[in-house]
Amino acid sequence: MSEQSQHKRNLNAVNRALAGGTFSQVRQLLNSLPGAETAHLLESSPPREREILWRLLSQEQETEVLQYLGEEVRVELLRDLPPEELVPLIEDLDTDDLADLLQELPEQVTSQVLAALDAQNRERLEQVMSYPEDTAGGLMNTDVITVRPEITFGVVQRYLRRRGEIPETTDNLLVVNRRNQFIGVLPLTRVLISDPGTTVREAMRTDVEAIPADRPAHDVAKLFERLDLVTAAVVDENGVLVGRITIDDVVDVIREEADHSLMGMAGLDEDEDTFGSVWHTVRRRSLWLGINLLTALAASAVISLFENTLEKVVALAVLMPIVASMGGIAGSQTLTLVIRAMALGQVQEGNTRYLFTKELAVGALNGLLWALVIGATAALWFDDTSLGMIIASAMVLNLVVAAGAGALIPIAMKRMGIDPALAGSVVLTTITDVVGFFAFLGLATILYASLV
Amino acid sequence: MSEQSQHKRNLNAVNRALAGGTFSQVRQLLNSLPGAETAHLLESSPPREREILWRLLSQEQETEVLQYLGEEVRVELLRDLPPEELVPLIEDLDTDDLADLLQELPEQVTSQVLAALDAQNRERLEQVMSYPEDTAGGLMNTDVITVRPEITFGVVQRYLRRRGEIPETTDNLLVVNRRNQFIGVLPLTRVLISDPGTTVREAMRTDVEAIPADRPAHDVAKLFERLDLVTAAVVDENGVLVGRITIDDVVDVIREEADHSLMGMAGLDEDEDTFGSVWHTVRRRSLWLGINLLTALAASAVISLFENTLEKVVALAVLMPIVASMGGIAGSQTLTLVIRAMALGQVQEGNTRYLFTKELAVGALNGLLWALVIGATAALWFDDTSLGMIIASAMVLNLVVAAGAGALIPIAMKRMGIDPALAGSVVLTTITDVVGFFAFLGLATILYASLV
Repeated sequence: MSEQSQHKRNLNAVNRALAGGTFSQVRQLLNSLPGAETAHLLESSPPREREILWRLLSQEQETEVLQYLGEEVRVELLRDLPPEELVPLIEDLDTDDLADLLQELPEQVTSQVLAALDAQNRERLEQVMSYPEDTAGGLMNTDVITVRPEITFGVVQRYLRRRGEIPETTDNLLVVNRRNQFIGVLPLTRVLISDPGTTVREAMRTDVEAIPADRPAHDVAKLFERLDLVTAAVVDENGVLVGRITIDDVVDVIREEADHSLMGMAGLDEDEDTFGSVWHTVRRRSLWLGINLLTALAASAVISLFENTLEKVVALAVLMPIVASMGGIAGSQTLTLVIRAMALGQVQEGNTRYLFTKELAVGALNGLLWALVIGATAALWFDDTSLGMIIASAMVLNLVVAAGAGALIPIAMKRMGIDPALAGSVVLTTITDVVGFFAFLGLATILYASLV
Repeated sequence: MSEQSQHKRNLNAVNRALAGGTFSQVRQLLNSLPGAETAHLLESSPPREREILWRLLSQEQETEVLQYLGEEVRVELLRDLPPEELVPLIEDLDTDDLADLLQELPEQVTSQVLAALDAQNRERLEQVMSYPEDTAGGLMNTDVITVRPEITFGVVQRYLRRRGEIPETTDNLLVVNRRNQFIGVLPLTRVLISDPGTTVREAMRTDVEAIPADRPAHDVAKLFERLDLVTAAVVDENGVLVGRITIDDVVDVIREEADHSLMGMAGLDEDEDTFGSVWHTVRRRSLWLGINLLTALAASAVISLFENTLEKVVALAVLMPIVASMGGIAGSQTLTLVIRAMALGQVQEGNTRYLFTKELAVGALNGLLWALVIGATAALWFDDTSLGMIIASAMVLNLVVAAGAGALIPIAMKRMGIDPALAGSVVLTTITDVVGFFAFLGLATILYASLV
């Protein structure tokens, strides 16, 4: 059975039970599901059902489910809990998850949670919280196992047996010196296949670098992807080991970054809760619509410059959205491509010129192609060759401008510290609308004036 | 030093050296870089430089670099090689990468490569190739280490030492019965911490299910994400172990799926080569522009129905793009949200109605808000209260339609087996344009006709 249909069955069963009001059945079903699946159910439920489902969970289940919930939903469910109920729920979360969560909750709750932790855990949490959420330090956990270079594998293995537990997703032991500075990694597989007399120093890998704690999460993700890492050590500015990052947290970063581009280009937040309340959603989205209304008004202002021409030749009004629309489409292709390439780190000084020239050439060729088509169509439709020539010329011009703008906007925005995934498409559409209407109606005004 | 600036330095150094024609310097630089970094350089280079860089690599380096290259670039570089040069380059690739690559190369090359492999590798490759690329079977590698449940950890460890090598990213040994059917996993960490007398059966985990080879890659990725897996066993329809999937290949799936949504919504292929040739790019993108030209013409056809009204009230031509544009923006917010939620498996029968109703309500509220603003603006601008009322009504109507269409289009398309990330935005824009122009100009025609 596929994952999808499994969810579907669970979701439908829960909905039926909720609709029938048989909470005991729902509770029974929830008891049989793994935490990740319950979290997915909560995220796929409208506010009322989500609230009911959450209340039906035992405290133990709530703790389990919390670590799988998306940030926005998690904060929504926990925000209104009194601290004495909150602390037992969240104190067992992974250090990095807990640090993220505390940053979203009121100050007072944070200090109560910190006070409730034992000294060692508090120190670890404070260390993670001292780094911004989107850096290596903010991503790391502190559950590292360290060994010294001079000991033998026999000793390592006795140590591990006495310890009795190795944290999830541990592929390497981390080798440190007396001052706890990172010097290399010892793959667990080497401990398994090597002679017990081998020393850590002989078998450790020193070609693997540790990640500085202030390195941006984006760079960490690229590093994991490029080197196919499962875990990586994190060090402070003195090279002292402070924690480790595991691939599951990196996968979250990759997912969030991808979501950020996709959602950002539609003016949405990547954490947007699909089933959030109407009011919350309206507030978030209205700003974006307001900004776009301004750009549409700018286009109208351009059109109004040509009222006289429009009055004389109403065919212009019929055709004018075409040039602007094609410019927007062509420009957003370039924009999307460049934003993706920048996210992958492919756009650098050395190749910007090539990229720009290539996109201009693509814009010009596509402009010519579709200018012929629309020029012929317009000339036949309105039985007016001049009109065909006007729209064809405006089309070529706007598609070249669109390509140039699509390539330059994200590069320029990045230099100015603006996120092109968020602001790029608004600026692009404004340019392609203004240029599209101006070129088409302007050319028409000149040509018809000279003809009449 | 950050990842980004490291790339930048490499890229700039290569460009300077290439520009100066000092190939020996470039070769020296390339020798000092890890394969992943060289692959990144190739992907970030225009066609001519890419070709030169590739030729400067030794055969050994080429083999190393190949496994890190994106599919489109890899095929481009290998397509024209004669088989006798190709075979030594690619025969050491991971089974899953090799299978993907062979499916892109000419039939004749595939059979030559297969013939050049030893019997065991050929059998493995043919097994992977027998599954579609986007299934668990197509993602898997065949480098599994299996153990039987009845042996002790002492025996396991002797076996591993004799073997001498454990494949990269191995966190579990796979436990199989006499018929090679999967029965559980044995975490390497348990072998390390447990007594040598423990049997595999006592310590293995049986709560971890194997993935059927025909399971879609998308489901595999969700499973890895949800359960924080590092590797997973793959079985055929009889439960026989056929391979394993590692997290690095899953990360590629996640990246590709995210790219697919982002790029697809702009009519681009997720594999699109940022620095590909102009001609290649024009061909790919022109189709998308052609489709969009048809939708723009549909909008023009609607406008042309109202030529008489436009001739009388030229202010309508000035304002008419606003209603259509706002509908497009609002609709694409809903469309993007629903496409993302569907990719995450959150949209099911039980909650579609809520989602639809919520989006309609959001559309209506945002429509009302911005209708007031644009209505007042239009009334003041043209000193015409009727015009304000007309545009305000059309705005509310179009934003509600946009929300409904944005929610229903992806759900309907998925049922029809159409990819909403590819086709959704075109259909949406057509609807919001047609409805936007029709509502605004239609209302105006009725109202002005009754007023005159």
